[in-house]
Amino acid sequence: MDQPIGVIDSGVGGLTVAKELMRQLPKEEFVYLGDTKRCPYGPRPKEEVVNFTWEMVRFLQLKKIKMLVIACNTATAFTLQQLKEQLDIPVIGVIQPGARSAIKVSKNLHIGVIGTEGTIKSKAYTNALQHINPDIWVNALSCPPFVPLVEQGLFRGDKAEHVVRETLEPMKNANHIDTLILGCTHYPLLKETIQKVMGDDITVISSGDETAQEVSVILDYYGRLYEGNRPPRHKFYTTGDANLFRDIADTWFEERISHVGTITLGD
Amino acid sequence: MDQPIGVIDSGVGGLTVAKELMRQLPKEEFVYLGDTKRCPYGPRPKEEVVNFTWEMVRFLQLKKIKMLVIACNTATAFTLQQLKEQLDIPVIGVIQPGARSAIKVSKNLHIGVIGTEGTIKSKAYTNALQHINPDIWVNALSCPPFVPLVEQGLFRGDKAEHVVRETLEPMKNANHIDTLILGCTHYPLLKETIQKVMGDDITVISSGDETAQEVSVILDYYGRLYEGNRPPRHKFYTTGDANLFRDIADTWFEERISHVGTITLGD
Repeated sequence: MDQPIGVIDSGVGGLTVAKELMRQLPKEEFVYLGDTKRCPYGPRPKEEVVNFTWEMVRFLQLKKIKMLVIACNTATAFTLQQLKEQLDIPVIGVIQPGARSAIKVSKNLHIGVIGTEGTIKSKAYTNALQHINPDIWVNALSCPPFVPLVEQGLFRGDKAEHVVRETLEPMKNANHIDTLILGCTHYPLLKETIQKVMGDDITVISSGDETAQEVSVILDYYGRLYEGNRPPRHKFYTTGDANLFRDIADTWFEERISHVGTITLGD
Repeated sequence: MDQPIGVIDSGVGGLTVAKELMRQLPKEEFVYLGDTKRCPYGPRPKEEVVNFTWEMVRFLQLKKIKMLVIACNTATAFTLQQLKEQLDIPVIGVIQPGARSAIKVSKNLHIGVIGTEGTIKSKAYTNALQHINPDIWVNALSCPPFVPLVEQGLFRGDKAEHVVRETLEPMKNANHIDTLILGCTHYPLLKETIQKVMGDDITVISSGDETAQEVSVILDYYGRLYEGNRPPRHKFYTTGDANLFRDIADTWFEERISHVGTITLGD
């Protein structure tokens, strides 16, 4: 099916998911929309997040997307169910894939989850995990310093390691988790440092990697994989500054992306 | 949805998939049917495999299954498409999940696949992998000694290691794969030995583990996860000897299973 897959996020964090999608599904074409201007969604009331998300979805519907990926934990927690019910295309969020993958790899059923305050407070991961297996013991921790760290480009090195070590201290000491879910799309950029701090015995799971695999499952299941040979031309849109968006995207993707456009939502 | 999930296999191999399904989806109830009497399916002509598989499916339909898992590589290669088209419940095979997971973990896109002669000859894994990413280089090898080894209970130890080392020699030397798919449901019982022989740099993927995760994805997507609190009572059926089946199941599951019945198909 020669139509693009839509990816929405409150800003640039979802680019980690987009990158993984492009790697695992190299024949597919993606159109990404980051609501950078109104980012972050985390502290906003539910109704506002729902409205903003619908505005993004309506824009992508004009692009004739064949599937929608909500690459934002907050938006997933608040809108996944209604988007699934109301859209006539498959819809996937980032929370369930991360939860499912943790269930696959955890041996002792002690699973750690880190994310923004909003995501941790929503208990979306705890609910997703225990919905499948009520015996799972969840240790959830919000890590407010991580997003600023990533947005400053401090992925590794002494400063990053110091912040990560200090923030994860309660997670490291208070229990015996064998699996840690990175429940925020910014965190995969810190994965190396987080792994170093937590130690090699802990399996660290990036929701983005798992989401890409589930997108593949659903596309395949619905017979919507692209079967032709045209090279994909991905498109990126932001509600903020296109140059700033491109700079961040370039750092994260490690290659120059083109087709970045600025759009206006909600006016 | 309080209906069981059906699992079919040509014999006992699919028990490795069933075990993983029960681990990852502990609230769900399973009904397993192994066509032990007519096992193996590998060397049989396609039409026969299709007929036998449909006979199994019809039996499980009487059990009101809400989803079907084809836990057999040969049956998946020959019947997945038509079962998906003709049944009104979700259907999943073992090949696509293994392929998809390999695509997720492989960094150099050199992927090894081992299986029975039938599976390797069918090129089902190569097709599944290259369907998603045409740049993947596949090294496929049939390993005829592995199934007899498993059926003798020789999972590890000197004899097992010797056979595995000798069989995998061409895979180990001729290329630089970074990922190896176990494309036969018997092979996960040899996983430890295979990993030892291949070395720690190779990621070994059990299709069964991945299949269980995809079952979870599809059940969740269709809103068919079981929501209640009754303890699951799994049922096992074989077309062969129930005691023999129970003995093998006990060794593989490492716990006593009950409810093994013998049924007759195709008369």
